[in-house]
Amino acid sequence: MMYGIFSYDIALPRVGFKTGDRIHGEYILDLEVVSLLGCFAGIPVDTTVFARPCLNEFIAQGKPVWEAVGKRLAELIAHETHTLASVHDQVFIHQSRVTMHLPVQIGDYTDFYAGIYHAENVGRMFRPDAEPLLPNYRHMPVAYHGRASSIVVSGTGIRRPSGQFLDGGKPMFGPSRTLDFELELGLIIGKNSPLGVPVPVQEAEDYIFGVVLFNDWSARDIQRWEYQPLGPFLGKNFGSSMSAWVLPFSALEPCRVAGMAQQPAPLPYLQQSTPGHFDLALEVVLQTQTGDELVISRSNARHLYWSFAQMIAHHTINGCNLRIGDVLASGTISGPTPDACGSLLELTENGTRPLNLPSGQAQPFLADGDTITLRGWLGEGNKQIALGEVSGQILPSFQQFG
Amino acid sequence: MMYGIFSYDIALPRVGFKTGDRIHGEYILDLEVVSLLGCFAGIPVDTTVFARPCLNEFIAQGKPVWEAVGKRLAELIAHETHTLASVHDQVFIHQSRVTMHLPVQIGDYTDFYAGIYHAENVGRMFRPDAEPLLPNYRHMPVAYHGRASSIVVSGTGIRRPSGQFLDGGKPMFGPSRTLDFELELGLIIGKNSPLGVPVPVQEAEDYIFGVVLFNDWSARDIQRWEYQPLGPFLGKNFGSSMSAWVLPFSALEPCRVAGMAQQPAPLPYLQQSTPGHFDLALEVVLQTQTGDELVISRSNARHLYWSFAQMIAHHTINGCNLRIGDVLASGTISGPTPDACGSLLELTENGTRPLNLPSGQAQPFLADGDTITLRGWLGEGNKQIALGEVSGQILPSFQQFG
Repeated sequence: MMYGIFSYDIALPRVGFKTGDRIHGEYILDLEVVSLLGCFAGIPVDTTVFARPCLNEFIAQGKPVWEAVGKRLAELIAHETHTLASVHDQVFIHQSRVTMHLPVQIGDYTDFYAGIYHAENVGRMFRPDAEPLLPNYRHMPVAYHGRASSIVVSGTGIRRPSGQFLDGGKPMFGPSRTLDFELELGLIIGKNSPLGVPVPVQEAEDYIFGVVLFNDWSARDIQRWEYQPLGPFLGKNFGSSMSAWVLPFSALEPCRVAGMAQQPAPLPYLQQSTPGHFDLALEVVLQTQTGDELVISRSNARHLYWSFAQMIAHHTINGCNLRIGDVLASGTISGPTPDACGSLLELTENGTRPLNLPSGQAQPFLADGDTITLRGWLGEGNKQIALGEVSGQILPSFQQFG
Repeated sequence: MMYGIFSYDIALPRVGFKTGDRIHGEYILDLEVVSLLGCFAGIPVDTTVFARPCLNEFIAQGKPVWEAVGKRLAELIAHETHTLASVHDQVFIHQSRVTMHLPVQIGDYTDFYAGIYHAENVGRMFRPDAEPLLPNYRHMPVAYHGRASSIVVSGTGIRRPSGQFLDGGKPMFGPSRTLDFELELGLIIGKNSPLGVPVPVQEAEDYIFGVVLFNDWSARDIQRWEYQPLGPFLGKNFGSSMSAWVLPFSALEPCRVAGMAQQPAPLPYLQQSTPGHFDLALEVVLQTQTGDELVISRSNARHLYWSFAQMIAHHTINGCNLRIGDVLASGTISGPTPDACGSLLELTENGTRPLNLPSGQAQPFLADGDTITLRGWLGEGNKQIALGEVSGQILPSFQQFG
């Protein structure tokens, strides 16, 4: 049961709803039409929000409304009510007919670094003689601000960035040679918090509307040369991809688990009294233009060190405000084993051990034409619930300055 | 001649215009009313943009329209035309009656590090045994993404942030003890650039609508503990302040100068063939609650190492897109002398040499109740043109978690 923004034929972008089941999974329920049919009668929702080109105004209706709308939609679909059945072709639009759009208007985008195995792998690679984790890592969910303008919806091509990097110790200019993906989850913020007022960790989950899969594409060569002392910039902001479909946060409840032990105990403002992690299976699929297609990583969201609630509490502890539609991404979610790494940087040990593809090709980083798809789900068998998948193909670099 | 967003009495926020001269400088010209009077006849501007609560839609009309509107307004005011004189009290609103608002809706905010004296001062302080400038500094305008949601208009109070910092080597939580300002210029982006397509350096200035003064408030203790490896986050994103009034970029033409020599020569995509720096005098005023008021720094925008055009060319070289209303701040603009430092970190050598105030008080960093005002101008005598000033007072920290 997910929300997204779709358009088709002459219909302008509006809110759609999709179930995960076999029968309806290929169809998008047009919520503008559903609301015009009166199906939301009795729910205090401003139904004009379903005709908008982003979810922000629906989200702004508040959690009781999301819950009531979600429940009503589940009933309508489960019971194939007369109302919907009689106008089936007007309310259920087959996915082959639609174009999907970015689900939210994003104010700010923050990227955390909450995957401890990723942080360790990177530390080990770039600071081989030091402790893999920096001293602050276990004390706070480290994060940085990313670029909101270049976040694109699943299916959008990603142009290989050009930029500066070191070649034999000298700065040179050209297309990135070490283009990578990062397997992340993204939170869609569901409630504004006022500037100057922190969100307590126990209330933090109330600020989450839903969850997407998020690919934080990274140009490792550009990133390495630019990132001191202010962090990643052009190595990241050429594009990030997110799912078209947002899974409401409440859908994760069945897979809630305790995270790994946090040692040392975090400061009180980060201490969460209830389990705040989620058993979400994740996988990364690589498809090449030469016909290879394989799962190159299998990970799980439970490998995050910091919980979503801790990320939000930390983000706002200094009074920084959150706005509806903001995206908070988790950082790369690698697991403890080599086949569970959430980036090629880790999977290929910085390109030194390229992936061996079925065709015999060796793949250190992403090639033009490659497509990366991130998938995720919770539960098993016919109780399985999928997250919205996110996919993007690498386009050749822009040639004007080539 | 500056643009801003103001409201008064029952009038909703709308576009205002202000001259710098003695007679009209205290009055704001209400451009919604001016447009209703037909004063923009013959200019292809959609006059509804003047009734909007931000400048973005006016800016989106394009450079020829900004220029035509600016010229018409200058004529109307210079000649005290009959039209305006007969309705003086309806079109000229005294500044004492108005509330100013954030002039633009900001999509993304980027902060550069283009002040070379600042970078050297900081490098010398924190890496005393190494080269003050990091190896990448003279090869690219280093930058990071900041927080857009917490940018506030001049006059808004800034709450002292709480957070984590090291105390005797141990992480602790509390209100920041080393709160600072940073003297910066901000560019308001005036033209969208498409995702995937770089803006050539020679065309980059066409993407600037105007200039503001910008205070990048910084909590040094929080920043120092959090910033490895991903850059500043909570040490900055509790608030940044910008001028209410935007000076059109074209107004800077008379003070255009060549910048300092760039050695080594930057890569071709950063080579600007015309002078791209500006002789803008800048000053910082500190006012304490105990009655001290003094200029604590005098600097100049010509001390920036990288030009505005180079910042834009670099920002987009990887295909990152710009949107109307984005803010690009310069980084702290310190000059070569100790009295020209653009932050207390530098002025007091990290608090070790506090400012001596006239009252006899010693001031290492900002105290609650302190107000910092940034001022700037170009030209001299009665040809002087002021930038919009930016001011903010420090409020005590939020106490819930105190």
